[in-house]
Amino acid sequence: MTNIIEKLKFNQDGLICAIAQDYQTNQVLMQAWMNQESLIITQKTGFATYFSRSRKSLWKKGETSGHLQEVISLTADCDYDCILLKVKQTGNACHTGEKTCFFNEI
Amino acid sequence: MTNIIEKLKFNQDGLICAIAQDYQTNQVLMQAWMNQESLIITQKTGFATYFSRSRKSLWKKGETSGHLQEVISLTADCDYDCILLKVKQTGNACHTGEKTCFFNEI
Repeated sequence: MTNIIEKLKFNQDGLICAIAQDYQTNQVLMQAWMNQESLIITQKTGFATYFSRSRKSLWKKGETSGHLQEVISLTADCDYDCILLKVKQTGNACHTGEKTCFFNEI
Repeated sequence: MTNIIEKLKFNQDGLICAIAQDYQTNQVLMQAWMNQESLIITQKTGFATYFSRSRKSLWKKGETSGHLQEVISLTADCDYDCILLKVKQTGNACHTGEKTCFFNEI
């Protein structure tokens, strides 16, 4: 664990934006939120754990679906208010069954 | 313009999370925020315009630096609260001079 975590800027709800990206294809899979606890758990376990704003609880991605995200790397952006996760995605990232959550063309 | 925009869920501040990704390499370049006006301007002009939370104003990416983002595609995620922009980035995306804002390994 580096001191980068201490630099992270969590918002007024204690959350930070997190983007999950396929480590091989670089496809952006989903965007979610983490609190400090979920980030520490993600680091310790090696699997992405987010914070569900609707359920107000920790949420290990794929815990029920099996669509786990093994974390390959974690990177914060220049102003420390967003985290990029490169992950090895089991199955599909989206609960709709799509590979990525980003499928609604504007 | 599709009716996807009407489905978008802007937060309590009228903003939606936006992720910019290189359209060729899929490298994630930056994360920023858009309000409805900046999204419409982005669509109309074909260049990424965000909303600066610190300056509380529209912010055309690269307006002063020249590091414009030509938008190749715009996609909303499954729950309509995040937008992915595939862009043709002129120069570097990050104000630090890095290609991407995500360079702080955790």
